[in-house]
Amino acid sequence: MDEVEFRPEPGQYAWTFGGVAPTHRIRPGTVLRLWTEDAFSGRLRRPTDRPSEVLDMAEVNPQTGPFFVEGAEPGDTLALHLVDLTPARDWGASTTIPFFGALTGTDRTALLQEPLPELTWIYQLDRVRNTLLFEARRGDLRLELPVAPMLGTVGVAPAGREVRSSLVPDKFGGNMDTPEMRPGTTVYLGVNVEGALFSVGDGHYRQGEGESCGTAVEGAMDVTLVVELIKGGAPEWPRLEHDDDYVVVGSSRPLEDAWRASQVGMVGWLGELYGLDPLDAYQLLTQISLSPLANVVDVNYSAVTKVPKQFLPATDAYGGMHRHLRALARDL
Amino acid sequence: MDEVEFRPEPGQYAWTFGGVAPTHRIRPGTVLRLWTEDAFSGRLRRPTDRPSEVLDMAEVNPQTGPFFVEGAEPGDTLALHLVDLTPARDWGASTTIPFFGALTGTDRTALLQEPLPELTWIYQLDRVRNTLLFEARRGDLRLELPVAPMLGTVGVAPAGREVRSSLVPDKFGGNMDTPEMRPGTTVYLGVNVEGALFSVGDGHYRQGEGESCGTAVEGAMDVTLVVELIKGGAPEWPRLEHDDDYVVVGSSRPLEDAWRASQVGMVGWLGELYGLDPLDAYQLLTQISLSPLANVVDVNYSAVTKVPKQFLPATDAYGGMHRHLRALARDL
Amino acid sequence: MDEVEFRPEPGQYAWTFGGVAPTHRIRPGTVLRLWTEDAFSGRLRRPTDRPSEVLDMAEVNPQTGPFFVEGAEPGDTLALHLVDLTPARDWGASTTIPFFGALTGTDRTALLQEPLPELTWIYQLDRVRNTLLFEARRGDLRLELPVAPMLGTVGVAPAGREVRSSLVPDKFGGNMDTPEMRPGTTVYLGVNVEGALFSVGDGHYRQGEGESCGTAVEGAMDVTLVVELIKGGAPEWPRLEHDDDYVVVGSSRPLEDAWRASQVGMVGWLGELYGLDPLDAYQLLTQISLSPLANVVDVNYSAVTKVPKQFLPATDAYGGMHRHLRALARDL
Amino acid sequence: MDEVEFRPEPGQYAWTFGGVAPTHRIRPGTVLRLWTEDAFSGRLRRPTDRPSEVLDMAEVNPQTGPFFVEGAEPGDTLALHLVDLTPARDWGASTTIPFFGALTGTDRTALLQEPLPELTWIYQLDRVRNTLLFEARRGDLRLELPVAPMLGTVGVAPAGREVRSSLVPDKFGGNMDTPEMRPGTTVYLGVNVEGALFSVGDGHYRQGEGESCGTAVEGAMDVTLVVELIKGGAPEWPRLEHDDDYVVVGSSRPLEDAWRASQVGMVGWLGELYGLDPLDAYQLLTQISLSPLANVVDVNYSAVTKVPKQFLPATDAYGGMHRHLRALARDL
Repeated sequence: MDEVEFRPEPGQYAWTFGGVAPTHRIRPGTVLRLWTEDAFSGRLRRPTDRPSEVLDMAEVNPQTGPFFVEGAEPGDTLALHLVDLTPARDWGASTTIPFFGALTGTDRTALLQEPLPELTWIYQLDRVRNTLLFEARRGDLRLELPVAPMLGTVGVAPAGREVRSSLVPDKFGGNMDTPEMRPGTTVYLGVNVEGALFSVGDGHYRQGEGESCGTAVEGAMDVTLVVELIKGGAPEWPRLEHDDDYVVVGSSRPLEDAWRASQVGMVGWLGELYGLDPLDAYQLLTQISLSPLANVVDVNYSAVTKVPKQFLPATDAYGGMHRHLRALARDL
Repeated sequence: MDEVEFRPEPGQYAWTFGGVAPTHRIRPGTVLRLWTEDAFSGRLRRPTDRPSEVLDMAEVNPQTGPFFVEGAEPGDTLALHLVDLTPARDWGASTTIPFFGALTGTDRTALLQEPLPELTWIYQLDRVRNTLLFEARRGDLRLELPVAPMLGTVGVAPAGREVRSSLVPDKFGGNMDTPEMRPGTTVYLGVNVEGALFSVGDGHYRQGEGESCGTAVEGAMDVTLVVELIKGGAPEWPRLEHDDDYVVVGSSRPLEDAWRASQVGMVGWLGELYGLDPLDAYQLLTQISLSPLANVVDVNYSAVTKVPKQFLPATDAYGGMHRHLRALARDL
Repeated sequence: MDEVEFRPEPGQYAWTFGGVAPTHRIRPGTVLRLWTEDAFSGRLRRPTDRPSEVLDMAEVNPQTGPFFVEGAEPGDTLALHLVDLTPARDWGASTTIPFFGALTGTDRTALLQEPLPELTWIYQLDRVRNTLLFEARRGDLRLELPVAPMLGTVGVAPAGREVRSSLVPDKFGGNMDTPEMRPGTTVYLGVNVEGALFSVGDGHYRQGEGESCGTAVEGAMDVTLVVELIKGGAPEWPRLEHDDDYVVVGSSRPLEDAWRASQVGMVGWLGELYGLDPLDAYQLLTQISLSPLANVVDVNYSAVTKVPKQFLPATDAYGGMHRHLRALARDL
Repeated sequence: MDEVEFRPEPGQYAWTFGGVAPTHRIRPGTVLRLWTEDAFSGRLRRPTDRPSEVLDMAEVNPQTGPFFVEGAEPGDTLALHLVDLTPARDWGASTTIPFFGALTGTDRTALLQEPLPELTWIYQLDRVRNTLLFEARRGDLRLELPVAPMLGTVGVAPAGREVRSSLVPDKFGGNMDTPEMRPGTTVYLGVNVEGALFSVGDGHYRQGEGESCGTAVEGAMDVTLVVELIKGGAPEWPRLEHDDDYVVVGSSRPLEDAWRASQVGMVGWLGELYGLDPLDAYQLLTQISLSPLANVVDVNYSAVTKVPKQFLPATDAYGGMHRHLRALARDL
C-alpha cells in the first residue's frame, strides 16, 4: 500500500479546483498523510487581528493538492475516506469579514448598510479535555466547546473546462462546509477530468450547521485519508457515507435549490441501492430525511440530505467501498 | 388545576388563525386533553384514494380551538407545553398532492411541466413495536419506521388584523411542520390579540426534516398540553424549549430568509439569557448551531436554529417555565 | 349609469383585504369618484419627519373601500378601469423606513447590521409643468421628474377565508406597486367572496420599477374608476390591460417565483385569447415578453409579464371589456 | 485606426471566459469586424431537430475571441462599443432544452417531474420587412416579429484565477442575455487580468426580457465593435451606456440578489457621476429606475437597473467615452 506524506510550502498551495498542475500522481489505494493550512492562510492569529488588514483575499482557503489519481477518467467515482483529522495547532481562529456571512449584506445580497464590525475570536485548544475555549469579545462569557474536527473543502476539478475558486462549493464538491465531512466519512465525487485532480483543505476544529458568520473555528489540520477509485458510477452531486448514514450534499442558491438538489440526489441513490421508484423514494425521504444545513454563506449555499441506515435494509453502496475503507483505516 | 377535554365535531374545526370565535375560554395553568383530526380531514384512508378526488382543498388542516386564554394581552408570551401526543388511529396517511411539495412545481414555483402522479401511502401503526409500516407503492420494499409523534401546526391569532390559513407558518407559529414540536416541548408564542386565541392540529406520526412531498404520516392525535401565560416578553418568532435545547423557528421564502430569521431570533434569545452581545452570539452560533430544516413546502418555508444547552451555562429561560411545566406534566 | 363619490373620513379607512364590512354596495357599471389617503396616512409631511417617530405602523396604507359589487360571486372576474388619477395634494413624500426596503436587511432578510438612516424627501408638485421636484437631502442636486400617477394597491377580498394586510400583494391583487396600474388601465381580478369587496389606495405620483427604498412618491389621490363584472373566467393572478399591452402580475418570493407566476399566467391568457398551446406560448413569450419589475420590497415581491398587442393578432379579451370601458371613460 | 476582421473556424471557438489563449492582440481604438456562431454551434437547423439529439452540451455558446487588449491591466475599464449587429443567416432557431429554462425544473431547481417536450422553432428572417416569422408548432398562429439584434454574451476573463463557462453571467459580464446589449451600446467591464481577454458571442435576432424558455432567436451574427481602454475605474458589475440611458447589470441567484447588485451598482455610478450620496441615489432610483429583466434561466440570473438620462443633468461618464465612440462609429 502506497503512502504519501505531504506538507505543502506556502508557494505550493492550490487556490482553485482545476487549472493547477498536480503536486503528486498517486495510485488508487494510496494513503495520504497531509497537512492543510487554515482558510486564513495562517494570517489571523490574535484577537486584535482585523481581516481587512491582515488577510489577502486573493490568498484565502489554500488547498493541499491537487492529486492526480492514476486511471481516473471522466464518469468514474473518486472515493476518499477520511481516516483521521487532528488539529495541527493549539488554537483556531474565527472572524467577521466585512460583507461576508449569513447575517450581513454581501457583494451579492448587495445592500447599503454599513458593514458589521470586524472582530476576531481565537479559540485555545485543550488537547486533554478535547475542548475549544470560546471567549466573548464584548463580555465575560467563556465556554468550553468540544473539538469536532472536519474538512470544509474537498473537491475535484470541475466539469465543462471550468476552474473554480476554492471558496466555491458545487457539483465537484469544493467548499461545502458541512460538519458531515469528518473522520470516518467516505466521500464519493464524480470525476470530471483525467486524474480527478482532487485537493483538500479548510480544516475546522468545529463548526455549527450553516456556518453563520462565514468562518468556523479555522485551523491547520493533520489529515490522513485513503484514496480509492470506482470505475463509472459518477454521482451528479457529492455523496458521503458514514457507518450510520448516507448523505448527499447539494450546493446552489437560493437555499431551497441546494436542498432540492440533495433530495433529488438521494432519490437517485436510494433508487440505485434498492431499486426504489422515484416516487416511493420521495415519500420515504418525506418521513426519514435528516436535513442539517451545511453553509449559508458561500458562493453557493450547501444543504444536506441524510438518511440513517438503521431505517433501511442492509446493503453495500459502491460494492461495500465504505466498509472496505473503514477496515483498511483500522489497520493503519 | 383546570382540565378541559375537547374532541371537536367536524363543524367545530377552525381553518384559520384569527377570524374565528373561541371554542373555550381557559385560565393559565389549564390542562387540555384534545383530539385533533388529521390534515386531510380524515378523507384519505386507502392507498387507492386520490387527493384530487377525495380532498376538499377548502377543508384541509383542521385545527382544534381556538382557545381564549384569560389575561393574555398583546405583547405577552403564551407558553404551551406538549405533555403527550398519542396516535388516535391505527394508521396514518401520506400522499402527493398535484403541484404541492418540494420536488415539484407549485402554484408559486409556477412551471409548465405535468404534475407528478397522485399516489397515496397508508402506514399501519404497530402499537407494540411502536412502528409505522412503509410499503412501497411501486415495488416490494417494506420498512418499519419508529413512531415519532409531533404536531405540525400550533399557533396564535396573527398580528396586524390578519387572518391566515391554517396551512401557513409565520411569526404567529402556525403550520411550521417541524419535528422539534414533540412531546416534552414548551413552545413560546408572542400574543397578538386579547386572549391569544391559539389552536393546534396537524398531528404527524412521524416526519422527516423538510417534509419533502408536503405531507408527513398524517394522523388524528390525542394531545395533552398545559397552557401558561408569561406577561410581556413576546418573542418575534416562535421559540421552543426542550430539556436539552433551545430552538427558534423562522418562516419565510426563500429558505435562507427563514433560516436567517431563526438565527437572528436565537441571537436575541442568547442576548436575553446571557447578556451576550449580538456579535458574540453570532460567533457562538457559527460554532454550535444545529440547523435541521422544518418544511420546504408550505406557503412560507420553516427553518430551525437549535442550540444544545450542554454547551451553555445553566440558566432559566422565562423564569424556569419549562422546568415548571415539565414537573407539572409528570404529575398528570 | 350610477355614480358614487366617496372621500372616507380617517375612521373609515380599511387596513386589510377581507375582514371589513363594505362602505358601499354598488352595481356593475358604476362610476366611482374616490379620494385615497397616502400610504403614510398623511403623517409624513416635512423633510424633518422621521417615520419611526410620526408613523403608526398599525395604520399604514389606508384603503378606500371595500365596495360590495352586486352579483359578484366566487369565480367571477371583477374589471376595474382606472379613468383618471389626479394628485390631491401639491406634494408627495418618500422615506427610508428602518429595516424596510430592497437595499437593507428587513424583518425577513434578518441581518445584524445597523439600520440605514431615516431620511424623508418631500417632492413639490408643479401642476403647470407636471413635474415633481427631487431635492437631494445630502447635497445640492435638484431634478424635475415627470408626474406619472399610479395606484400601488388595488385588490379584492382573498380566498380561503384569509384577511390580509393592505401591505401585501398576492393573487387577490393588493399592494402590487406596479407602475402599470395607471390611468387607462383595466385590471381584472378573480372574485373570491360574494360581492368581491374590492378597495383601492396607495396613490403614487410616480414610482420606479422595483420601488427600491420601499416608498414611492406617496400622495393622496383623486381617483375615478369604473366597475364592471364579468361572470366566470376568474384569473389566478391579476391581469391588466392597456390599449397597447396585456399584463399579468405575479407576487411571491423569491423574485423568480413572482415572475414565473406572471409568465405562466400569461401563457394561460394567450391560450385563452388565441388557442395557443402552452409550449408555443412559452416560446412566444421568450421572444416578446417585457418584464419590468413592480416591487422588490413588499411581503411578496411583484413581477410583471407584459406583451405588446402590436405583435399579436387583434382580438378582444373578455369580450372587448377594455374597449368598452375606454369608450365609457371618454364620455365621463 | 486598426481594423481586424475575424471569422473563427469551428476549432477556434472559445468555450470559456479565461483559460484560453488570445486569438488576437489588439490596441485600444481597434475596430473589430467579427462573425459569431449561434449558441447551438449551428447544429439546430430544422423544426424536427431535437436538442438532445443534435446538440453537444460541451460545445454550446461558442465565443469569438478572446482578444488581448494591449495595456489593459487589472483595475482598468474595458469599453466595447457595439457599432452594428447584422444577422449572418436568414433564419434563427429556438428550442426547449430538457431541464433548462425558467418554467421547468432544472439541474438546480431539481424536481421529479418529467421534462417538457423538446420542440424547435425556426424563425425565417425577412430582410426587407426586417421581421422574423414565428410559426406555432402546435397550431396555426403565425406572427411577424421585428428583428432586434443583440449579443447575449460579452465578457472578459474573470477574477480570482477562475475560468467560467460561456454559459455563465457574473461580474465579468459573460452570458447576461440582456436585450440592452444592442447596436449603439457601450459596455464597460472591469479588467481582471492583463490584456482583459474579452470575447463575444451568442447573437440573438431578438429576445424577450427574461428569456423564458432559455433560448432566444439564436443566430449567427456579423458584429462590428470598437474597443477602447480606460485606465482605472473598473466597475464591480457590467455597466452599459446608450444615448438615452445608463444601465447596470447584476447577475446572481435568487433573482432579487441579481437586481440588488444592479441597484447598488447604479447607486455607485450615480455617486461617481453626480457626487450623489448613496441614500439620495437610493431615493432617486426608487422613483426613476427602469428594471427590465435580462434572463431568469442561466447559471446566474441577470437583472438590470436602467436610468433614463433625460431625468439627469447632462454629464460625461468616463470622460465622454460613449459620445466619442458613437462619433467614431458614425465614421466607419
